[in-house]
Amino acid sequence: MSLSFQHLTSTKQLSREDTDAILKISGEMEDVLEKGGSDLLADKVLAALFYEPSTRTRLSFETAMHRLGGKVVTAVGMQFSSLYKGETIEDTMNVVGRYADIIVMRHPEQGSADTAASVSPVPFINGGDGPGQHPTQALLDLYTIQKERKKIDDIHITMVGDLKFGRTVHSLSFLLGLYNNLRFTLVSPKELTMPEKVTSFFKEKGIEFTETQDLEQGLDADVIYMTRVQEERFEDKSEFERLKLKYVLEAKHVKGKDITVMHPLPRIGEISEDVDPLPNAAYFRQARNGVPLRMALLAMLLGKA
Amino acid sequence: MSLSFQHLTSTKQLSREDTDAILKISGEMEDVLEKGGSDLLADKVLAALFYEPSTRTRLSFETAMHRLGGKVVTAVGMQFSSLYKGETIEDTMNVVGRYADIIVMRHPEQGSADTAASVSPVPFINGGDGPGQHPTQALLDLYTIQKERKKIDDIHITMVGDLKFGRTVHSLSFLLGLYNNLRFTLVSPKELTMPEKVTSFFKEKGIEFTETQDLEQGLDADVIYMTRVQEERFEDKSEFERLKLKYVLEAKHVKGKDITVMHPLPRIGEISEDVDPLPNAAYFRQARNGVPLRMALLAMLLGKA
Amino acid sequence: MSLSFQHLTSTKQLSREDTDAILKISGEMEDVLEKGGSDLLADKVLAALFYEPSTRTRLSFETAMHRLGGKVVTAVGMQFSSLYKGETIEDTMNVVGRYADIIVMRHPEQGSADTAASVSPVPFINGGDGPGQHPTQALLDLYTIQKERKKIDDIHITMVGDLKFGRTVHSLSFLLGLYNNLRFTLVSPKELTMPEKVTSFFKEKGIEFTETQDLEQGLDADVIYMTRVQEERFEDKSEFERLKLKYVLEAKHVKGKDITVMHPLPRIGEISEDVDPLPNAAYFRQARNGVPLRMALLAMLLGKA
Repeated sequence: MSLSFQHLTSTKQLSREDTDAILKISGEMEDVLEKGGSDLLADKVLAALFYEPSTRTRLSFETAMHRLGGKVVTAVGMQFSSLYKGETIEDTMNVVGRYADIIVMRHPEQGSADTAASVSPVPFINGGDGPGQHPTQALLDLYTIQKERKKIDDIHITMVGDLKFGRTVHSLSFLLGLYNNLRFTLVSPKELTMPEKVTSFFKEKGIEFTETQDLEQGLDADVIYMTRVQEERFEDKSEFERLKLKYVLEAKHVKGKDITVMHPLPRIGEISEDVDPLPNAAYFRQARNGVPLRMALLAMLLGKA
Repeated sequence: MSLSFQHLTSTKQLSREDTDAILKISGEMEDVLEKGGSDLLADKVLAALFYEPSTRTRLSFETAMHRLGGKVVTAVGMQFSSLYKGETIEDTMNVVGRYADIIVMRHPEQGSADTAASVSPVPFINGGDGPGQHPTQALLDLYTIQKERKKIDDIHITMVGDLKFGRTVHSLSFLLGLYNNLRFTLVSPKELTMPEKVTSFFKEKGIEFTETQDLEQGLDADVIYMTRVQEERFEDKSEFERLKLKYVLEAKHVKGKDITVMHPLPRIGEISEDVDPLPNAAYFRQARNGVPLRMALLAMLLGKA
Repeated sequence: MSLSFQHLTSTKQLSREDTDAILKISGEMEDVLEKGGSDLLADKVLAALFYEPSTRTRLSFETAMHRLGGKVVTAVGMQFSSLYKGETIEDTMNVVGRYADIIVMRHPEQGSADTAASVSPVPFINGGDGPGQHPTQALLDLYTIQKERKKIDDIHITMVGDLKFGRTVHSLSFLLGLYNNLRFTLVSPKELTMPEKVTSFFKEKGIEFTETQDLEQGLDADVIYMTRVQEERFEDKSEFERLKLKYVLEAKHVKGKDITVMHPLPRIGEISEDVDPLPNAAYFRQARNGVPLRMALLAMLLGKA
């Protein structure tokens, strides 16, 4: 199935046709995984360029490539490499795009993904560009909602934690804007509320949302999407210490209820371990969903699915 | 052949049936290597998680996986990664164990391997947990003794150097306890003698051992197992300097004698280079034996051999 | 086709028969790439040991191996590894050469490649040894000249920039000494002129060369080989700042002329971006040529081409 784009840098470029196709192919990739993989991408090479480490995203992409029989070349932390010494992203893309058939890049600077995509001779995927976008995380979140809830339309989703700096909740919010009749409850300390770029998007789309500082008010949702308060976003460490565990989801909040608990991981305490054994706990399944989702994207962008 | 365990964290969990089976399959893997490898693990992915670098152990595992047609995803030095920032080993296992089919982990903290194995959804192998265990090193040592001496029972083995902190001599000692009629000569400075946990194990098993500070008293052995005095174990660097080359094995000690010289490597001078050309020098063959041994373990733990 | 050597450490060891064979097989590897790769090296493992990072060289070698169906194990920045702690290069080679079928090594110390090759049990390739040699870069430069100019004999080549410390221009100069009727124009600041070891080689071979500080005097060449002034070579940073952009090649210098512009990359401004869209700009094609060239070398050294 064809996508409306050659490079994936942002969830904003995705149409409903795109997400329908990606979720469909992701489902088919589950069968491929079931059968022990395939040789679909046997003659393809993925270059994984991680200017900052992100073991989860990288291993998930690399595993996805291997499950389809593809090959992987990897560079991590290239800021320490001679290659990176002053070389522009454009030049790096112009070189690596002549070695490999497809590139995934993680880079700490917002906008770097657009720069890279603008010159890449081969399909390019943004694996996270600093405070910017992380579209494959949002897509695997979307895929997880569909798998867990059997639908995406008509969902009530509660997002909890650092909604100000949380890249994943922004990317996912824009993506959910493609679906119908959604309702959001946004739970955060007043210092970390959802930014105006997202709430104005909700208003423009006519999406119902409620903002609150009270976790209890979000517990009647279909999906609770927990996020971590990230220390690196705070200049004032005492403020971080005060806010980091303001919201802790515990088994008592969801046990016996039809609520799906998601988290982009890593978690640092904001979901109690007593939630782990409950059927509500979808976060490890969610991480695992990154593999078929990324298999689908790799295959589709390479024109093989 | 089946093993008595799903995860390998310590040599203490190995029965004689286990080691017999592992050594037998390791021998069969030599034939596979001879033929240029196989596709036995063609649809399997190994995750190599090295929280501290260990190039020898890692490359050996990765090569073993490749020789069996398997795929590898690798993370090194993850303490510098966002994944690791505060994430528990349990959570990391719960994620990576949903990407890969088998995991090998090296971690600086003793006990981390048991923690990891307790939750890993897939077979787990301890690649060394700080001052704890390093079971695949002990197994390749055992395999080397069998290959070099054509037997393991009835061996006189002299262990030399840092017997206090030397993880490999501890793991190997416990493993040799499965065999019959062994004799140990333990040569070390008095500051670095074999710990009581090992000598009491010898006593309990009725294994004959002699402790000495004199290398000459250990030269009538079948096997001399040299070890390096590790700088990182000493707070007092002058003591390290004094002890590091207390025992240096030279050609004159073994030339023309039926003695096998082993070393887990790296060596920093404790075996003179004039030993290298002698047939006694088994240490590079020993390192190489890590490949068929690890091929055997990977295949067996994945239920393929 | 057979080469006159088992290990490649320096361009000086190459005969004209060697380069003819390597360029011929490189051309055949273009066809292999066109067809999506082959299984020529399906049962081979390359060990890439990069004691200092060089993402371009490493990814190019790894891609080359993958395109021929081979496997790769990689270690980067091993000075931080326990393996490296005091272990000699000889011991490392003796171990890794018993895991893998072929080794490429990058190391910061001149002469390290010769040391490694002297003991390696398997074919060894120098991937750059500090200020020493970088023979595969020189070979891909040679291959690029042949592809771009349809010949190597009778070429006028202008080398520009840091000719004193520029390892690539030295290696390439020695290699071009195998060809006939070449002419060199050497453009550099007087602080960074071509060293006597190269100019005396030119004299000995009867190769015509002109030294100048004026870029304009080199613009009538067939090939302009630009190089970067490397900050790490200067103790006096103000001198680096003064010299780093003394020569900047711009579109106006080459537009509409039959001149091929080459650069080993990375560039830090010494070729203006307005050159990039011109047909003269060969530097990204040059980087890409590293893949078929390294495929050829890997296959030939492994006795498979």
